Amino acid sequence: MAQNTPITVAHGDGIGPEIMEATLHILKEAGARLDIETIEIGERVYLAGNSAGIEPGAFDSLRRTKVFLKAPITTPQGGGYKSLNVTVRKTFGLYANVRPCVSYHPFVRTKHPVMDVVIVRENEEDVYGGIEYRQTNQVTQCLKLISRPGTEKICRYAFEYARANGRRKVTCFTKDNIMKITDGLFHKVFDEVAAGYPDIENEHWIVDIGAAKLSDTPENFDVVVLPNLYGDVLSDVAAQIAGSVGLAGSANIGETIAMFEAIHGSAPRRAGQNVANPSGLLLGAVMMLVHIGQGDIAARVHNAWLRTLESGVHTYDVFDSAASKEKVGTREFAEAVVSRLGQQPELLKAVSYKSGGDGGSGGGSSFAGSGTAAAPQQVTKQAVGVDLYLDWAQGTANDLGAAVAGLDGDGLKLSSIANRGVKVFPGGHTETFCSDHWRCRFVGAAGEGASVTHAQIAGLLARAAAAGFDYIKIENLYNFDGQPGYSHAKE
Amino acid sequence: MAQNTPITVAHGDGIGPEIMEATLHILKEAGARLDIETIEIGERVYLAGNSAGIEPGAFDSLRRTKVFLKAPITTPQGGGYKSLNVTVRKTFGLYANVRPCVSYHPFVRTKHPVMDVVIVRENEEDVYGGIEYRQTNQVTQCLKLISRPGTEKICRYAFEYARANGRRKVTCFTKDNIMKITDGLFHKVFDEVAAGYPDIENEHWIVDIGAAKLSDTPENFDVVVLPNLYGDVLSDVAAQIAGSVGLAGSANIGETIAMFEAIHGSAPRRAGQNVANPSGLLLGAVMMLVHIGQGDIAARVHNAWLRTLESGVHTYDVFDSAASKEKVGTREFAEAVVSRLGQQPELLKAVSYKSGGDGGSGGGSSFAGSGTAAAPQQVTKQAVGVDLYLDWAQGTANDLGAAVAGLDGDGLKLSSIANRGVKVFPGGHTETFCSDHWRCRFVGAAGEGASVTHAQIAGLLARAAAAGFDYIKIENLYNFDGQPGYSHAKE
Repeated sequence: MAQNTPITVAHGDGIGPEIMEATLHILKEAGARLDIETIEIGERVYLAGNSAGIEPGAFDSLRRTKVFLKAPITTPQGGGYKSLNVTVRKTFGLYANVRPCVSYHPFVRTKHPVMDVVIVRENEEDVYGGIEYRQTNQVTQCLKLISRPGTEKICRYAFEYARANGRRKVTCFTKDNIMKITDGLFHKVFDEVAAGYPDIENEHWIVDIGAAKLSDTPENFDVVVLPNLYGDVLSDVAAQIAGSVGLAGSANIGETIAMFEAIHGSAPRRAGQNVANPSGLLLGAVMMLVHIGQGDIAARVHNAWLRTLESGVHTYDVFDSAASKEKVGTREFAEAVVSRLGQQPELLKAVSYKSGGDGGSGGGSSFAGSGTAAAPQQVTKQAVGVDLYLDWAQGTANDLGAAVAGLDGDGLKLSSIANRGVKVFPGGHTETFCSDHWRCRFVGAAGEGASVTHAQIAGLLARAAAAGFDYIKIENLYNFDGQPGYSHAKE
Repeated sequence: MAQNTPITVAHGDGIGPEIMEATLHILKEAGARLDIETIEIGERVYLAGNSAGIEPGAFDSLRRTKVFLKAPITTPQGGGYKSLNVTVRKTFGLYANVRPCVSYHPFVRTKHPVMDVVIVRENEEDVYGGIEYRQTNQVTQCLKLISRPGTEKICRYAFEYARANGRRKVTCFTKDNIMKITDGLFHKVFDEVAAGYPDIENEHWIVDIGAAKLSDTPENFDVVVLPNLYGDVLSDVAAQIAGSVGLAGSANIGETIAMFEAIHGSAPRRAGQNVANPSGLLLGAVMMLVHIGQGDIAARVHNAWLRTLESGVHTYDVFDSAASKEKVGTREFAEAVVSRLGQQPELLKAVSYKSGGDGGSGGGSSFAGSGTAAAPQQVTKQAVGVDLYLDWAQGTANDLGAAVAGLDGDGLKLSSIANRGVKVFPGGHTETFCSDHWRCRFVGAAGEGASVTHAQIAGLLARAAAAGFDYIKIENLYNFDGQPGYSHAKE
């Protein structure tokens, strides 16, 4: 007989305790093999003076069980309270946000009757590091970072998820026609990972066209894997147009720890009235069961829930006199699901999930330890120059070109100047608007591609400082295996 | 009597000449006051050896007339041909891309029968500078730049457009809850500009929620102004869900020069058959007429076109046996519009535009010279530290902390280390995944906020070089008017 899997459960605030009770009741009746540790998070913890809303001891439980089923919480009004989700995500490196966006036509109103899309969003990189600098009077900068191991992890997760959940296709969106180095890396790694999953179809779209297709004909998509920013925007678009925001669960997956929840909030005004819909949390729990290898139980719960939805037994939020038959409360809805355990939906599509051989080999965790953060490939890295960025507002591009050429020397020479990515010296156009934020590219005196040293770069900065330039930043230029690892300005 | 306005016209490739002829015929019959200069662009120019597809002499015409009505062109297969639109945009600083996305229910099929949204996309900044660097074995970087003058121009254009086109509301989307400095600047400047237009309603949404609402209930939006990346994605989403990609025109607006076109391509297979739909280019020409202050003529053309569409006189691409009455060719469609000049639509909403007092005071150009690129505000800028980024893969965050502390000296000291935006030293979490891309923050020895000099920063680099560190970049830390102009890592 299969062993129980330990999980950590938090009952949360507002409607949290009611929907968690309903969810756990259904899981138990369905035969889920769970050992539950309960922790306290949320409002009372915040108000007791813990700015993260979760006690250090609770982290120990998460480290022990590695699986967190979380009800919604209430963050108190006023400053100084940190987002609990951000804290958990950052602490445990939850790199994947997974959100199924499904329409339940004709039982829930939607403009897109055929839609069953899962958004897999990279959750740690891109512009969400929030690494920002105001550099001049006029110009601010945010760093977008895309890493190979971060991209490998999210792409591999998307394909593993597709396999465990009986999905047939994974689509990737990037803007690699413009961002050839960062989004280009994401696309390249996606292709590499996809090659290891010949049983799963794969495709790539430029994000603008892909987003247009996703929002117009979502029926053509299955699993979609995205860098953080595109995923943020398009997971909200997909959930909204499916019409099922109140019924959706989501997962946040890390290499060792994963968290499952509803996407809605704690709705304090509905608390304690036995009216809340437990479906979002229940579908989060279904994802959890698949993750821990209990796909058989997950399918049993999910199909009974679908059968309940289509028999017209609805909580108030979904109730619609045209499509519903019986308006019920939280507990009665849970009983309705329990009474249908073992049934399949008749109109909606039934689900099936793969079951793992043990308690921890589901959609997310089995591959995490096996080379996901790939051993670095051996590459040859050669410094070939530096971009010296200046805050300067004393004239034209040609004026600056003349002034900066005076910094040449010690094996470095100025090759070009750009402003906001457009080359303005030598040979710029007079119509180009120039901000006070200039990029001066220095390369080896022998020409582009010749080696330069870090000491030469430090020397250039010393000369720039002595000449009174306000250099605001530098970016070194490297070749990797002989190929430039930097972009050229547009002419 | 009003003077004629000189414009530059290019007839383009494929269906271009036919739809341009139809468009110019309608404009003439409507009484547009134009002096036309014709230039050649596109396939023949490319194949004659001009890699930009436009001859230097043609630029002179654009500089003279400042208004460009452009038919679609064909870029030859094979490498080395530069995008003509990118060349024109970069050369003349066309900072605004304007795309009306309108549904014409019940005459053109759409899931969103009530939709009349104009996307105003910033077109020069954000991640589209394509300023990218591969910095380590694992990590790539793209710079996102948002400037105050760039943001002022686009926001002001959006409100001027709203006024000239009889629009009531301008909505802004940003992600300033995460990107407080860059997107925060965009939002702040939007609010500042909005205050100067009390006759126009304004609102701001976080881009994820805003995108979800736009794609689900576009009827709630009017003019939407967006930073470049969000605008790229959401202008395609909006055009697609309106169902009218083949009927849409767009404008690219600069401080001195503006370009108007259809959003579709040159469709070579349809060329020379008198079947193509001239509507996209015609609606581009309508935007041009408003821009040059001939709003009366623009409305006359646009309303006659709407009346034609709803009378069921349709070209093949729109023809649908349920909604159409007569399938016509390009010339016949143009005649059908001409014969309805002076008529208003009966079911669709009629348009009205403001007319300028002279030939150049329409939606885009009148304000361009009057302080758009605002004189820099006086701010006090103080260097207070530097982020030294290292490529390093020799141990843990604590190991690196010990090694880097050896660079302290000459008035600088290490304050913290972060990896991908998460603080990892001192006091990090063991679960945080660390790439080979580290940010070491140095501040003045007297503590955060104390002044440091550029010479001190150059000295730090010299010590790092001598110690054998591969520093990959630096970002200086500045206070502006005493407030930090840089973000702190998440703990």
